[in-house]
Amino acid sequence: MQMGMIGLGRMGFNMALRLIQKGHEIVAYNRSPEKINELAALGGQPATALTILKEKLRPPRAVWIMLPAGVVDHHIKELKKLLEPGDVLVEGGNSRYSDDLPRAKSLSEKGILYMDAGVSGGVWGLENGFCLMLGGPEKGFKLLEPLLKDLAPKGGYLHCGPTGSGHYSKMIHNGIEYGMMQAYAEGFELLKKGPYGDDLDLKALAGLWNQGSVVRSWLLELLELSLKQDPSLQKLRGYVEDSGEGRWTVEEAVKSSTPAPVLTLALMQRFRSRQENTFADRVLAALRNQFGGHAVKKN
Amino acid sequence: MQMGMIGLGRMGFNMALRLIQKGHEIVAYNRSPEKINELAALGGQPATALTILKEKLRPPRAVWIMLPAGVVDHHIKELKKLLEPGDVLVEGGNSRYSDDLPRAKSLSEKGILYMDAGVSGGVWGLENGFCLMLGGPEKGFKLLEPLLKDLAPKGGYLHCGPTGSGHYSKMIHNGIEYGMMQAYAEGFELLKKGPYGDDLDLKALAGLWNQGSVVRSWLLELLELSLKQDPSLQKLRGYVEDSGEGRWTVEEAVKSSTPAPVLTLALMQRFRSRQENTFADRVLAALRNQFGGHAVKKN
Amino acid sequence: MQMGMIGLGRMGFNMALRLIQKGHEIVAYNRSPEKINELAALGGQPATALTILKEKLRPPRAVWIMLPAGVVDHHIKELKKLLEPGDVLVEGGNSRYSDDLPRAKSLSEKGILYMDAGVSGGVWGLENGFCLMLGGPEKGFKLLEPLLKDLAPKGGYLHCGPTGSGHYSKMIHNGIEYGMMQAYAEGFELLKKGPYGDDLDLKALAGLWNQGSVVRSWLLELLELSLKQDPSLQKLRGYVEDSGEGRWTVEEAVKSSTPAPVLTLALMQRFRSRQENTFADRVLAALRNQFGGHAVKKN
Amino acid sequence: MQMGMIGLGRMGFNMALRLIQKGHEIVAYNRSPEKINELAALGGQPATALTILKEKLRPPRAVWIMLPAGVVDHHIKELKKLLEPGDVLVEGGNSRYSDDLPRAKSLSEKGILYMDAGVSGGVWGLENGFCLMLGGPEKGFKLLEPLLKDLAPKGGYLHCGPTGSGHYSKMIHNGIEYGMMQAYAEGFELLKKGPYGDDLDLKALAGLWNQGSVVRSWLLELLELSLKQDPSLQKLRGYVEDSGEGRWTVEEAVKSSTPAPVLTLALMQRFRSRQENTFADRVLAALRNQFGGHAVKKN
Repeated sequence: MQMGMIGLGRMGFNMALRLIQKGHEIVAYNRSPEKINELAALGGQPATALTILKEKLRPPRAVWIMLPAGVVDHHIKELKKLLEPGDVLVEGGNSRYSDDLPRAKSLSEKGILYMDAGVSGGVWGLENGFCLMLGGPEKGFKLLEPLLKDLAPKGGYLHCGPTGSGHYSKMIHNGIEYGMMQAYAEGFELLKKGPYGDDLDLKALAGLWNQGSVVRSWLLELLELSLKQDPSLQKLRGYVEDSGEGRWTVEEAVKSSTPAPVLTLALMQRFRSRQENTFADRVLAALRNQFGGHAVKKN
Repeated sequence: MQMGMIGLGRMGFNMALRLIQKGHEIVAYNRSPEKINELAALGGQPATALTILKEKLRPPRAVWIMLPAGVVDHHIKELKKLLEPGDVLVEGGNSRYSDDLPRAKSLSEKGILYMDAGVSGGVWGLENGFCLMLGGPEKGFKLLEPLLKDLAPKGGYLHCGPTGSGHYSKMIHNGIEYGMMQAYAEGFELLKKGPYGDDLDLKALAGLWNQGSVVRSWLLELLELSLKQDPSLQKLRGYVEDSGEGRWTVEEAVKSSTPAPVLTLALMQRFRSRQENTFADRVLAALRNQFGGHAVKKN
Repeated sequence: MQMGMIGLGRMGFNMALRLIQKGHEIVAYNRSPEKINELAALGGQPATALTILKEKLRPPRAVWIMLPAGVVDHHIKELKKLLEPGDVLVEGGNSRYSDDLPRAKSLSEKGILYMDAGVSGGVWGLENGFCLMLGGPEKGFKLLEPLLKDLAPKGGYLHCGPTGSGHYSKMIHNGIEYGMMQAYAEGFELLKKGPYGDDLDLKALAGLWNQGSVVRSWLLELLELSLKQDPSLQKLRGYVEDSGEGRWTVEEAVKSSTPAPVLTLALMQRFRSRQENTFADRVLAALRNQFGGHAVKKN
Repeated sequence: MQMGMIGLGRMGFNMALRLIQKGHEIVAYNRSPEKINELAALGGQPATALTILKEKLRPPRAVWIMLPAGVVDHHIKELKKLLEPGDVLVEGGNSRYSDDLPRAKSLSEKGILYMDAGVSGGVWGLENGFCLMLGGPEKGFKLLEPLLKDLAPKGGYLHCGPTGSGHYSKMIHNGIEYGMMQAYAEGFELLKKGPYGDDLDLKALAGLWNQGSVVRSWLLELLELSLKQDPSLQKLRGYVEDSGEGRWTVEEAVKSSTPAPVLTLALMQRFRSRQENTFADRVLAALRNQFGGHAVKKN
């Protein structure tokens, strides 16, 4: 079937390409034309403006946006002007779930259906399929289903519930992801710094654990790959970014008075990775020096 | 090949049975005879005493013990008397890695090879194979390899390094397991207590995430199973035991001055699950009442 | 000097009374008249309506509000209508610092000076004085200073900085308070549950530590008091509320990418104190049962 | 009264000096003679060997050792040979409480009373007095009491309970200290990194909070001092050591299945302060790169 894809970044491009490979007709728009041309060479329909994208799609249209968070609302505003009653607009980026309801309400004024979609799978989605969590009206979900079926691996899409539930589910998914990653990170540091640090072959151990152990997972498969490429991970720096959902998960825990110590600590360890010689640690060193006369390191 | 199995608990029994099913000749000893008979009915060779077990095995013997931690050293002492130079003794239970070296030294006095083995896979190991982490001399590993190959799934066994490295690896494996479990636990509580708690089908979400999402794992497959059987987990109580390795992981982190906040918190949340109306919380309530006149709940 | 006090709850009443005792003329308004009358009997000027309060004060007026967070903005709106250029309005309740700037801007349209005030000291403030953190224009601070001097103990008031800085400082103050309280709570539980739990006299130990030890503090003095009244804290339940600032502190840490694990955990332990048989813990128990066949407690 | 002091490090020297200033007769031994001479110039009795120390003391003798943990048992062994029935030996250093009982048993063979003493107060103890937590037999405590009274501030010594209870109490005291310090450290970092970071005068705020606020404490007085000397703590490095008791507190929490997340995290933040570019963080960065193609920083 036809679909418009707006935003050909890493995720949007691969999603569009996977749909093309499965036989769908993808009309693609992007701010810079290079990516449009690149996709066109692979079978996409180019659209150099949103108006063109709209014209190339037959109603009821399915339009999917995969854009940086900061420009999502601007594009939804523009698309509200262009789209027609019965069209479906999917926001598949990293939106906060609480932004979805106002958007859905605004679009409903013109009879446009808004769906929020959490998308997981990263750069491997092109090959493996993307895991899709959809929120919004049943009607929109049904209209999109032929696309979802091909975008996802078998069993890999779900209508989670009403507007916002897709992004909410994706947010918690990422919160869990932070916690799992931190668990592996701490464990592997303990392997490396422990008494067998020089004996253990960490990539072999990661590989081993993926065969029948309780901690086997896709993340551990990826860690095995990384360790094969660089056994001591010496080529990269332990500076760890985050992308919003982990923070929102913590804020959600606070809002709902739910203890989530592991998900929270996982986020805070990332904050810590970006600091050196912190003020907090200097406070500790200063206090130790004050009450105990303990030696301090000079800066 | 031949192997003696000492201890036919949940793990030992299934390991013995898997080896029998793969064509090995397993001589089995257990404290209570029921399990010996049960295994004999499935093809095992019964041994109602350690002396009989020894007699039924041709040198060089392979003897594997899967016993509760408290009785391991007693059995090793007995086996030291019975076994002969060149025999291999494998300790596959939940031993602390630091106990392995003294045992290896003691057994070496009689020329017996000691191997420590971390075994993961739980009750699913019979069908899927057990993930095996071996520590100890290369010679012992080679002798055992025909057994290991059939006990484990493909690629599921590894000679980690010298004595103790198998149990050390298993200890850290379990520490990671605690962290991962807690990450899922917190995430699913946030799903349930969040604004879409009544809409979300948690078992469907667990199933979905196993298809192409970043958090897919074996633990999540198990969680899907649990949620299918009891969607709100109402039938069980949130009282969570631990079995040693998680504690040792924390102690190892402290010993090596390695921060492991997530693995540690995961353990402490288990401690907390076993408490009610804690003294710590009463201290907090008392203080709030003292300085702020805040209302307290009476006991 | 003259001051209007709006809100005669636990804090507002004691603040008004302390100022009366120091010779100031306090015009007091409260929703329910009982507290107005109670204060009047102690020397306050009653005001049964905001209009009356305004009339009884000579310009430039100083008006201090100590109200529940939910009704603050309503009262500020009303006071904006009543007050006159040059008057000073102080918000001394538990406002979030980010609410202060919009209020200050709105009031500045009529030439009214807005000051935010963090107030610490609890029920002991009447006797000991209240610790005061002021944010807002210098002019407002100077006008209030004769009151601040008597409201606080010696050295106990500070002009922290521009609008919002008073409430920001108070927020962090409370975040620290949560962390300190949790540190004592954990420590005293370890005393009680440790090998000398039956020997140690906890109230004596709290008293001892207040004499020359590194952990001496006012909170520890309060804990000594609590333990004297109820040595095992048996009369109260370990159900611990929080009042907003601790949550905002965590959100601020997340916003500024600052690790604050201890302040965060202290909050989450309070959340946990209000739960029983949590869903997260049931997830853990279910998983242990799935992979290891470990026994679970039935609900 | 008379007392022998063995070990004239920072703590031992000041304790001896305080007792001399209060009129006691202190016979002092130290490995290097400089400190003995220094104390002799201030009124101490020099003892260049343990035998001399013993000779200069009249029975029943009181001997206090303040030595590095590593040499304590050696000295106790030597003193067991020298001392006589009825003499009292006090171990006032950073011993683990579980070491006390074996020592007490060994010394009791010769009728020597062993007392364990937790000492808090740091370099300020000379002037303010030392806070003293004593464990051991009542008879030993009574014999020492004239010394304890002058060593401590008023109310600053306590007979906690049987052998080991003094060091146990001191261990938990230090665990609490770690938690409190970390609470202040995090709070002051949030002050500095928050929206008012350039406005707030941190030393003034520390000073303010010591006047009537809930978080007033001795540690906060020390922080005020540090911030007065170096307002941004620029002269020292955020590298934070620990000295054992914090680790033992965590191990005790694990042993007794008591959640102590804040005390534990406080310790682990110190570990983290000594690391840079950690392996754990590199694992996280590697994983983010693997699944999301996220940019990494090169090393």
